Amino acid sequence: MSPDPRPIGVFDSGIGGLSVVKHCARLLPDERFVYLGDTARVPYGNKSAETVQSYSAQCAAFLLSHDVKMIIVACNTASALALDMLRSHVSIPVLGVIEPAARKAAAATANGHIGVIGTRATIASDSYARAITRYAGERRVDIHSRPCPLFVPLVEEGWLDSPATRLIAEEYLRPLMSNGIDTLVLGCTHYPLLMPVLSDMLPGVQLIDCGLCAADEARSVLGVDQQSPTKASQIDLYVTDHTPAFTMLARQFLGMPLDEPVRVNVDHLQLPSAR
Amino acid sequence: MSPDPRPIGVFDSGIGGLSVVKHCARLLPDERFVYLGDTARVPYGNKSAETVQSYSAQCAAFLLSHDVKMIIVACNTASALALDMLRSHVSIPVLGVIEPAARKAAAATANGHIGVIGTRATIASDSYARAITRYAGERRVDIHSRPCPLFVPLVEEGWLDSPATRLIAEEYLRPLMSNGIDTLVLGCTHYPLLMPVLSDMLPGVQLIDCGLCAADEARSVLGVDQQSPTKASQIDLYVTDHTPAFTMLARQFLGMPLDEPVRVNVDHLQLPSAR
Repeated sequence: MSPDPRPIGVFDSGIGGLSVVKHCARLLPDERFVYLGDTARVPYGNKSAETVQSYSAQCAAFLLSHDVKMIIVACNTASALALDMLRSHVSIPVLGVIEPAARKAAAATANGHIGVIGTRATIASDSYARAITRYAGERRVDIHSRPCPLFVPLVEEGWLDSPATRLIAEEYLRPLMSNGIDTLVLGCTHYPLLMPVLSDMLPGVQLIDCGLCAADEARSVLGVDQQSPTKASQIDLYVTDHTPAFTMLARQFLGMPLDEPVRVNVDHLQLPSAR
Repeated sequence: MSPDPRPIGVFDSGIGGLSVVKHCARLLPDERFVYLGDTARVPYGNKSAETVQSYSAQCAAFLLSHDVKMIIVACNTASALALDMLRSHVSIPVLGVIEPAARKAAAATANGHIGVIGTRATIASDSYARAITRYAGERRVDIHSRPCPLFVPLVEEGWLDSPATRLIAEEYLRPLMSNGIDTLVLGCTHYPLLMPVLSDMLPGVQLIDCGLCAADEARSVLGVDQQSPTKASQIDLYVTDHTPAFTMLARQFLGMPLDEPVRVNVDHLQLPSAR
């Protein structure tokens, strides 16, 4: 059977989802990707569930108009609050970033103490805790969650390893460290850029990158074993606003050069009716 | 002549504009206020001029639908990028927060070295520097500007006086201190909540609160000398999204108890054609 030539659609509230695309492009080099960053309304992490669902529906509708074969919700807040809604409207696979990382964390922990960090909305949704508990099955797991809202602006400022970043990270992570976690889920696509600081502060703790887990899951859903490792994926970039942060940081998140994004308006788009 | 009974309209990208309303309510206790916080699309400070203008037009159109007699743009980014556009569409007075603070700064400096801090978009617009230079007239002024994008999330997290906040403030303000400023414009409506830390760090430097200056200007435009000091203003609150930050922080910004805000949708609103 020849492979489905349609592209994979990915959306995020802004730029962080490019860290998910980075892993997808590495694991699925033969694929084409259509990425939408909703930079006109970024961030989602401090908004209500209703608003996040409405914005996510418009982003998904945009990707559907590009005839994608799969949608990856590369935003933890949208994965927490809008995934079920999207799946009820869309017949192609819709992957979030929470379930794959939760499964990995449940498998990785030795002592059963798992930390989860993310935006306020992601943590308040309790989505990681529920998913990890589900994947752990009979085994007892203790989940220690903490919102870290200052990490996103620190990353977007490029303060990846400043003394202030370390001080704030210590403040956020101290309770998790004293809980004795051996596994920490980075439940926000911005956080992998803080990996060096977090690894330093948490020796022996396994850090779970939700973007890497989602890329693995996408490969498994597509049933792809091996693709040409020398090929470079094609990535078409769209944004809802041309913002300085996107231009400045996109390459850093993606880990490779990229074209200027095309600006689009998605306010008026609607999903098909629920199935 | 009996006073105009129509309310004063105030809008901001979110919650910060309530620090402007606080001063207005004190100086104009007989007035009614209609406040709109665009919390579904907050912040404006990292978005493009085109997007900020489009959002500002919708906010102003909402206030006009409440028959306001004056619009106060209680957001520095929108004042920097959208004030001229709004004035060309609207026949009532439209006040921003930049011009009044710029006039005060030009009058306040003794040594001619004025610092300005604000969001990336406000500082990049150069609006304060141009306005201060205009008000200074023949006198020479040197303007030292610095974007401080981490201050808004720090305030919204309630980290008003943490060690990390002091470290970040030192990093941001060090160049302004070595420039010998004697006056600093707090060019963002969130920053007055950092006044205690900033005063500590900048002894002898006069801090200009743009919200207080705008309230003074509103009183002068309305031609009000003295109002009943014992009366409490009526403030009708509207938001485009019910967000946790608004509920948590609104009272802190306003300095008084307030009702739950009413949620509205402004996406579809349009200003009248340009005059």
